[in-house]
Amino acid sequence: MIRYVNVKSRMRNEFIDITEKVQEVITEEGMKSGVCYIYVPHTTAGITINEGADTSVQRDIQTALTKLVPFEADYSHREGNADAHIKSTLVGVSQSVFIDEGNLLLGTWQALYFCEFDGPRHRRVAIQLIKAVTPS
Amino acid sequence: MIRYVNVKSRMRNEFIDITEKVQEVITEEGMKSGVCYIYVPHTTAGITINEGADTSVQRDIQTALTKLVPFEADYSHREGNADAHIKSTLVGVSQSVFIDEGNLLLGTWQALYFCEFDGPRHRRVAIQLIKAVTPS
Amino acid sequence: MIRYVNVKSRMRNEFIDITEKVQEVITEEGMKSGVCYIYVPHTTAGITINEGADTSVQRDIQTALTKLVPFEADYSHREGNADAHIKSTLVGVSQSVFIDEGNLLLGTWQALYFCEFDGPRHRRVAIQLIKAVTPS
Repeated sequence: MIRYVNVKSRMRNEFIDITEKVQEVITEEGMKSGVCYIYVPHTTAGITINEGADTSVQRDIQTALTKLVPFEADYSHREGNADAHIKSTLVGVSQSVFIDEGNLLLGTWQALYFCEFDGPRHRRVAIQLIKAVTPS
Repeated sequence: MIRYVNVKSRMRNEFIDITEKVQEVITEEGMKSGVCYIYVPHTTAGITINEGADTSVQRDIQTALTKLVPFEADYSHREGNADAHIKSTLVGVSQSVFIDEGNLLLGTWQALYFCEFDGPRHRRVAIQLIKAVTPS
Repeated sequence: MIRYVNVKSRMRNEFIDITEKVQEVITEEGMKSGVCYIYVPHTTAGITINEGADTSVQRDIQTALTKLVPFEADYSHREGNADAHIKSTLVGVSQSVFIDEGNLLLGTWQALYFCEFDGPRHRRVAIQLIKAVTPS
């Protein structure tokens, strides 16, 4: 019931469009309507929904996040990735998107982005689909 | 099954209380208990849950967001609304609220706010209700 | 159907690990697979999922949030806790975590943290479980 999508990041900070991979899971499961949950089981990554058409947007988001949470600061965590943990909390690790007629119901400009904050790494994203149940 | 609530913003940055409109959908659908999903299909807006009693709180949140993510900076996105995209990722585009005895189960001071970051615009918010199913 | 977990904070800013308490609810309800929703019905608190092994991470997140949103600034809200409201919107008040074979499906390093931003206070966290329903 829980499906996984593999993601491979190539940079320390990178947004990876996983919209198609998530849609494939919905299609394979044959889910027609309900809610699609996307969950990132990592503490130095996140998931966001934002513009997929112009890739400059994801760069601006990454730059803004790094400006707010610099790589180096007076952190107590000694593994050199405290910034990635903080970004993960700001962006969040889960999203809920609707499924309508077998498709992810995203807005015209929306895409689902896995947000890598401590790459390069092999990551995975968990997906669960819940069917809509009408009131009886 | 998916319902829409229309929202009309009048300013570039504006929080609009949509609690009553969401409650109307729950009442019309006759949903007694479960989860109410609120989804914003836009990339320059968001949704948050925060104090509804004192409107100064929403102004403080807007001011703080604009301080963190200024309207003008060295953005690569050329449409003049990179700040709005970044704020959308920080605030998020979906919320899940419980339904109990036919009502949104919000805390005493909580209200549901549509967050406009690139208005004025006509917007819409998607709503889906999932009925609670007890373990069998 | 909606369960509550009580949380008692001892400091103004404090992260409290509620993973075990949430797991207890799942075990008591006998839920084997589905989604566990955690909802904070407060406007000056939040919930995040982040590293549970090294407590320095939660301190770094708190410090970073306070740097981004200082306790004192030119806030219009007169109750002295505008910062806590803003942090609540940045971190969020709800999370969805998967349940697999009766257990919260967290990543290896993940823990569920109640985020107090205006303590010390007695707080509560609402929990609802939705069973996975396979497509028919």
